[in-house]
Amino acid sequence: MIGKVLLSHGSGGRQTNGLISEIFIKHFNNSVLSQMNDAAQLTLEGNRVAFTTDSFVVNPIFFNGGNIGKLAVCGTVNDLAVSGARPLYLSSAFIIEEGFELEKLEEIVKSMALEAEKAGMKIVAGDTKVVERGSVDGIYINTTGIGVIYEEIYISASNAKPGDVVIVNGTLADHGITIMCKRHNLGIEGDISSDCASLNSLIYEVLNVCKDIHVMRDATRGGVAAVLNEIAEASKVSIILKEESILVKEEIRGVCEMLGLDPLYVANEGKVCIFVPEEHAEEVLSVMKKHPLGQDAYIIGRVTDDIKNRVFVETMIGSKRILDMPSGEQLPRIC
Amino acid sequence: MIGKVLLSHGSGGRQTNGLISEIFIKHFNNSVLSQMNDAAQLTLEGNRVAFTTDSFVVNPIFFNGGNIGKLAVCGTVNDLAVSGARPLYLSSAFIIEEGFELEKLEEIVKSMALEAEKAGMKIVAGDTKVVERGSVDGIYINTTGIGVIYEEIYISASNAKPGDVVIVNGTLADHGITIMCKRHNLGIEGDISSDCASLNSLIYEVLNVCKDIHVMRDATRGGVAAVLNEIAEASKVSIILKEESILVKEEIRGVCEMLGLDPLYVANEGKVCIFVPEEHAEEVLSVMKKHPLGQDAYIIGRVTDDIKNRVFVETMIGSKRILDMPSGEQLPRIC
Repeated sequence: MIGKVLLSHGSGGRQTNGLISEIFIKHFNNSVLSQMNDAAQLTLEGNRVAFTTDSFVVNPIFFNGGNIGKLAVCGTVNDLAVSGARPLYLSSAFIIEEGFELEKLEEIVKSMALEAEKAGMKIVAGDTKVVERGSVDGIYINTTGIGVIYEEIYISASNAKPGDVVIVNGTLADHGITIMCKRHNLGIEGDISSDCASLNSLIYEVLNVCKDIHVMRDATRGGVAAVLNEIAEASKVSIILKEESILVKEEIRGVCEMLGLDPLYVANEGKVCIFVPEEHAEEVLSVMKKHPLGQDAYIIGRVTDDIKNRVFVETMIGSKRILDMPSGEQLPRIC
Repeated sequence: MIGKVLLSHGSGGRQTNGLISEIFIKHFNNSVLSQMNDAAQLTLEGNRVAFTTDSFVVNPIFFNGGNIGKLAVCGTVNDLAVSGARPLYLSSAFIIEEGFELEKLEEIVKSMALEAEKAGMKIVAGDTKVVERGSVDGIYINTTGIGVIYEEIYISASNAKPGDVVIVNGTLADHGITIMCKRHNLGIEGDISSDCASLNSLIYEVLNVCKDIHVMRDATRGGVAAVLNEIAEASKVSIILKEESILVKEEIRGVCEMLGLDPLYVANEGKVCIFVPEEHAEEVLSVMKKHPLGQDAYIIGRVTDDIKNRVFVETMIGSKRILDMPSGEQLPRIC
């Protein structure tokens, strides 16, 4: 579809219906959505339901490894998956700036459709608002997801236990640094790419070999540091990371140093922290390494009970520094 | 809470957590939300689930009869209710402009909490993004809702049948005209007020006396005209409205005439169109009139099969005009 988004595309009238059928229904194509009722009607098998929402305001909208649409689907898929749920249904709500290119919108919607299909989700409900030029920066997307929690899985941020190891599925800081480089034209874009990915199939494999996962969290805004601090606080435990074990790509580490950023505080969009009793660590690592998104999986740290509610990094020379909850804002509009 | 929203309130770090606990958790207070997991965990009784999403970009944010927060809850409550569902769980996602007053945010959040409680809903999941000054116009809110559809209720836009009457629960165009007057300082604000309201208790009473409701739709963006045209098209029927029966408040009609607007095209936020076989019309009207939000309920029109897929208005002198699907944009950012 060519042309630009007009205010009338958000009026609820003829142009809205045209946009819905020519872009949204066309790509999100499924029988629930095309009924066009005020609410989608779903059937859920299983009585523990996971429900999560996220708005995406990433700037720039297109970046190496993805765009705002792919990010919006992966982000919500991952929030469901780390809750031990099978992602099933998604809503997508768009706030679009008047004058936004319809071609770009269609590219974003195509990415969403592709990513939702890969994750086994259906996009069954939607909303489109158009605001005047200058009232939004291009496009913002909200996705809200529903999943059904697998039987016998009880994951919670407050469930970390001393003796757990913390496994991460790969390198850190790829997403945040890719966005920063693109936004500020740092010109090293070619070598780096967002890790934006749906983790549900990787997590499914993990839950399949080990039901005794205590905590799972994807490390997005605020990076691994924010996630681990939240878990330490909720579970009333401490967590010790080994600095030498932390995986960061060479180019990413270079940019972090240039910008004065600690990779532990930088957002990821395809990385999960998995807390598992040490005796299950080997089998979990082994199944993760067989999955394309877990080939570099490694143990990043351990849970202890020595000093309550803190995260530490043990440096190579054996000293310990506190890894605090991030404070202030290093990287706005990263997701 | 006083002060202003800062970019760091959206960072996912310490300030985000402060904002969440001091404003969101404080007012939305419930055990699911306060677990602060990546996804809320819900239990749903009933296997037909309704799911709906809406973003709210209304300008101005505060208006006679409500604000963006009340609107965001009522809008989603109503989309669930008109689907024949009992509204249960709500997510709320905020995109806030840097510098927005925390006091205003708290007032909005309080309205949401109050309205959700009245509607019997719990706000169980949320998200907060803060964008730089100028990247959003104050605050936008997405609400996504889950409900369980009552047994033996089968409502769909494609279910209107010749012989159905169309009942509306009161005067038209109150919301849209209130917003326009406030936005453009038309100075007649004092006398007019948005009809913004949660209709679930009214609809519950209707479903209680008559399970054979064919279609229900709240008449928001595009007004009664948009909704009836969509239903006529989906059900392959025509609908005839009686011009003399259409209820519009005197002041609202005056503003409509001044602005050249047809009240049938203006947004409502507390009005529902109910399609019911004529033999049930009296009992439905009677129960509606006993409810505070249905005291002015009346029959606005009838479904026929004469010429397919159109909506007509029969004027007082007996002539008929086509009431077309709205085209273009009369009233941007009305919800």
